[in-house]
Amino acid sequence: MRGSAFVPHDLSAPLRGADSGPLAGLTAGVKDMYDIAGERTGGGNPSWLAAQAPAQTTAVGVRRLLDAGADIIGKTVCDEFFFSLTGGNVHYGTPVNARAPGRLPGGSSSGSAAAVGAGACDIALGSDTGGSVRVPAALNGIYGMRPTHGRVSLEGAMAMAPSFDTAGWFAATPGLLRKVGHVLLDRERESTPLRRTLLARDAFALADDGVAAALRAFLARAQASLPLCEETIVAPAGFDSWRAAFRTIQGWEIWRVYGAWIERHKPNLGPGIAERMAHAASLRESDVAAARAVAADARAHIRALLPPGTVLVLPTAPSIAPPLASSAAALEMFRARTMALTCIAGLGGLPQVSLPAGLAEGCPVGLSLVGGVGTDEMLLDLAVALARHCGATDAPGAP
Amino acid sequence: MRGSAFVPHDLSAPLRGADSGPLAGLTAGVKDMYDIAGERTGGGNPSWLAAQAPAQTTAVGVRRLLDAGADIIGKTVCDEFFFSLTGGNVHYGTPVNARAPGRLPGGSSSGSAAAVGAGACDIALGSDTGGSVRVPAALNGIYGMRPTHGRVSLEGAMAMAPSFDTAGWFAATPGLLRKVGHVLLDRERESTPLRRTLLARDAFALADDGVAAALRAFLARAQASLPLCEETIVAPAGFDSWRAAFRTIQGWEIWRVYGAWIERHKPNLGPGIAERMAHAASLRESDVAAARAVAADARAHIRALLPPGTVLVLPTAPSIAPPLASSAAALEMFRARTMALTCIAGLGGLPQVSLPAGLAEGCPVGLSLVGGVGTDEMLLDLAVALARHCGATDAPGAP
Repeated sequence: MRGSAFVPHDLSAPLRGADSGPLAGLTAGVKDMYDIAGERTGGGNPSWLAAQAPAQTTAVGVRRLLDAGADIIGKTVCDEFFFSLTGGNVHYGTPVNARAPGRLPGGSSSGSAAAVGAGACDIALGSDTGGSVRVPAALNGIYGMRPTHGRVSLEGAMAMAPSFDTAGWFAATPGLLRKVGHVLLDRERESTPLRRTLLARDAFALADDGVAAALRAFLARAQASLPLCEETIVAPAGFDSWRAAFRTIQGWEIWRVYGAWIERHKPNLGPGIAERMAHAASLRESDVAAARAVAADARAHIRALLPPGTVLVLPTAPSIAPPLASSAAALEMFRARTMALTCIAGLGGLPQVSLPAGLAEGCPVGLSLVGGVGTDEMLLDLAVALARHCGATDAPGAP
Repeated sequence: MRGSAFVPHDLSAPLRGADSGPLAGLTAGVKDMYDIAGERTGGGNPSWLAAQAPAQTTAVGVRRLLDAGADIIGKTVCDEFFFSLTGGNVHYGTPVNARAPGRLPGGSSSGSAAAVGAGACDIALGSDTGGSVRVPAALNGIYGMRPTHGRVSLEGAMAMAPSFDTAGWFAATPGLLRKVGHVLLDRERESTPLRRTLLARDAFALADDGVAAALRAFLARAQASLPLCEETIVAPAGFDSWRAAFRTIQGWEIWRVYGAWIERHKPNLGPGIAERMAHAASLRESDVAAARAVAADARAHIRALLPPGTVLVLPTAPSIAPPLASSAAALEMFRARTMALTCIAGLGGLPQVSLPAGLAEGCPVGLSLVGGVGTDEMLLDLAVALARHCGATDAPGAP
């Protein structure tokens, strides 16, 4: 079932932003996990929505957009409890991916990405725990930013897995992505100059051939702006144990947040979500203790790879957007393959920006840049500097 | 041959805009018809480029973007002497349409539209005489604005057919399109409230079924924002005589501008362009006198349809983007069908905005709003108000 990017219980009228400010005159969509005073926050699930009272206050991130001048035009559809990367929502319909018709938009910030990709609004607020901004940005052919863990306030937002939760945002073009960053990021920092670029060879090896080829073509075009590209192995023992640790901690934490409510209310959960919640409920303390040890080692390893001025380059997702009619098994495979890539910044607590680098099979593919803690401004500047190579072919004379 | 959205003789480095202003931190591309001090202006043709000295001053429109804070990151490819709507350029390659792979980007502001559509820059400057902003905006799935004739300075820009020439601009999202308007439009005016919407039944009848269906679905979704939609006939005697008059005046004027140079230098002109220049050279004064009489009648008729507060709704182009491999005959048919629609605002001297309303066969289609003289601000506000319906499906529950 296809649906709108905006929820049925949407704002009755846009919220007007301040008259002046860096985002004055622009419009924003907000993922339906951020509180807006007087509105109920739905988290993608109608049973949850029905149990909520209208919010007393507006989330800090939303407030910052309003104070910077943006009008909030609507609340966007998301995956239930943010627990999916596909963007399918059986209750509200699946937001249309305007850049890859007939395919999923990616999630969980599905409506935010779809709205920006379709030109329905200028910018949109999402959230990213395990890839929920980065993945839909890539699949919708737009820019998406996951900030350093803790650098954008989540006050007034529903939680998912707090160890990894970040706010994040979308824009169709690079300067606008950066402008939103300057509004949302706490204690703005100087941009570090780029000194070294590492291409994640093991991450590229997980991508479909067409995706990897499109991204390598982009890097070849952008060579003058990324001159020091050398290859590296991010996970010497493979991504499996990192991904498993991420999932265990994520499952454990989401169950701490929503488990009691789910057991009491037994909401109707869509395919995939229900299975993952059941798995989350089954986790034991010993599972999560072991996972936290793996995660701590992974974090130290990933952070050591990325001293100030170094950037890691990898595919945002290993494939283009899956078809709407994908089987449950195909979607589970998409999730597993994607999380091998997204868990790097997740475990590291690191910022990651996804650029609409090119096309494979006519569908968008995203290139990601991951930086060290607090290098958000450097990544946003890099996205602007590299942008002119997005979508271009090799050169005049190319076929 | 596919190519970059940017010309080979591009800026060696971005031009930095002012530190503050409504476009601060954003990036812009500029159609290679606007002078930039110290650079040669190419107009899409390498022979013309080779004959030029570097410009002494920067065009007013470019200056305004810089003064408003935008960085100019590059000069974009366009159709030769702006004399085509397809976006094909045999010298520099045809900019890639990222939203309709394998298809033409539309022109003549092809690179500007392609760059914005691909996310290569935030905004881009184009020009529109017979549809050169509106058409590529529609085919690339972005917003494009043709202002009221004379309301944006063309000082420092190459001419095409001065009776119809306008500057114009692109953005991927609606608020940004409006922000650029506030920077470029002379003597900013109050936005007129919308009182009446006329759907151009004869213009819709010229569109392919899929295009018309996608646009009517958009209008159905947007009904609450356009409540007074009634149907009208724009051209009671058909569009043929209007289009013929437009073409004659356009050909006559472009030959006054470039004919002497073309006869002296005999530049290599690509398919379509060469034939149209030959036709322009063959026009006689009696042809253009008759055409000017038809054009004057058409202008009076069109302007009378559009008193303040009335908006005309029509398809921007009658079809989706033609395939790259289209025959010359197919492209001539595309041009003729498209100009029946674009000559309305052209002859009227009127502003027109194109919105990325939806998809047909998976490719973007644009909905256009035409207003009376000087109602540019009303159209830009309307584009923002209608934007949330772009790309959405009918409603939850739709197939």
